[in-house]
Amino acid sequence: MADDTSRTVLLEQQVLAKNDGLAEQNRSWLAGHGVFTVNLMSSPGSGKTTLLARTVRDLGGELTISVAEGDQETSIDADRIRAAGAEVVQINTGTGCHLDAGMLAGALHSLRPPSGSVVFVENVGNLVCPALFDLGERCRVVVMSVTEGEDKPLKYPHMFRAADLVLINKVDLLPHVHFDMRRCVDGARRANPKVGVLPVSATRGDGLDAWYAWLRQAAPARA
Amino acid sequence: MADDTSRTVLLEQQVLAKNDGLAEQNRSWLAGHGVFTVNLMSSPGSGKTTLLARTVRDLGGELTISVAEGDQETSIDADRIRAAGAEVVQINTGTGCHLDAGMLAGALHSLRPPSGSVVFVENVGNLVCPALFDLGERCRVVVMSVTEGEDKPLKYPHMFRAADLVLINKVDLLPHVHFDMRRCVDGARRANPKVGVLPVSATRGDGLDAWYAWLRQAAPARA
Repeated sequence: MADDTSRTVLLEQQVLAKNDGLAEQNRSWLAGHGVFTVNLMSSPGSGKTTLLARTVRDLGGELTISVAEGDQETSIDADRIRAAGAEVVQINTGTGCHLDAGMLAGALHSLRPPSGSVVFVENVGNLVCPALFDLGERCRVVVMSVTEGEDKPLKYPHMFRAADLVLINKVDLLPHVHFDMRRCVDGARRANPKVGVLPVSATRGDGLDAWYAWLRQAAPARA
Repeated sequence: MADDTSRTVLLEQQVLAKNDGLAEQNRSWLAGHGVFTVNLMSSPGSGKTTLLARTVRDLGGELTISVAEGDQETSIDADRIRAAGAEVVQINTGTGCHLDAGMLAGALHSLRPPSGSVVFVENVGNLVCPALFDLGERCRVVVMSVTEGEDKPLKYPHMFRAADLVLINKVDLLPHVHFDMRRCVDGARRANPKVGVLPVSATRGDGLDAWYAWLRQAAPARA
């Protein structure tokens, strides 16, 4: 039993170490080509795709954006992003619960993002596993929605610990749900004292100016 | 590369095989003791705990209910269930993304559920990984909420394929979100033609009579 556990832990470490090696290769390629990459992570249904489609529509004239789209199955999200005007590659993971650095490498090979552009990675909807897998991205943005409850940063701290920015989405629904914004922000800061937090509504538009300002400040100038 | 992949797949198979063995032991113990077990699974924030707390309050005089509560961290959910009046064991998984059969065995050892009682397992909030891990439970109930969007059964089919019943929660928010109930139900049935689907609101009470009727019909008579 102890041997099985040790072996499982050892194998997990090997899988992560292999991923970390590929992530470093991605990071180096992305830096060398002047491409800014954001790994978007959240629970299923927090609004990543709606946020991305709107971001593409609003900033498409200003930034060159392409998207690596992760889902267990279907190309529903890729179709939505493509309709918004961005290049997109759909990655279907089957039973897989996260994207890994090898998958991003394959997507970059297809997308061939130009220098000065932005690549968004929309990870598989999962507030747990994607936190463990470095993709070689420059920034990690966690999206959560007010309908999920303010306790999520305390209950899923690994995801929030790994974030550069937290977007608290669906604030248009605040009048209809019990959600304590202050406790949520306190929880995110407890997991990660330096994390930025922005309340937004991807459907109604609240807070998107602040999100776009963050993105402009973080992303390189367009080539 | 191919060797690494083969070895990873082999190890995953070994982990699942070991889990399946322990799940069979749980199933046999539960059947022998006349204990009915439901594995509740969903994305984070779909309302599993609210539904469970209300179920405990509403059926506590009729059914003996205890709960094995899975979360990465904190005992927030266990405290809520205990306040509702049920025996509860909190299982913290750390970075782990699902409960496994060994964890349920440990929880059953602590809970010592009496014959004729019901044990709910509230799995870690994750619409992906828990679908792969048999716990030895009698039934699997997937909770999703209308705020997550009607495409979830198509995008996360493994979870819906494994379900005996799908509860579509938070129907009180339907006037405020875009959600096509028919497409959602069609998607769930495409993944799993025989699955039962019940729309509910754990906060306002819609549909709970049907949920309780399902539970009474599925659970053994109280000892």
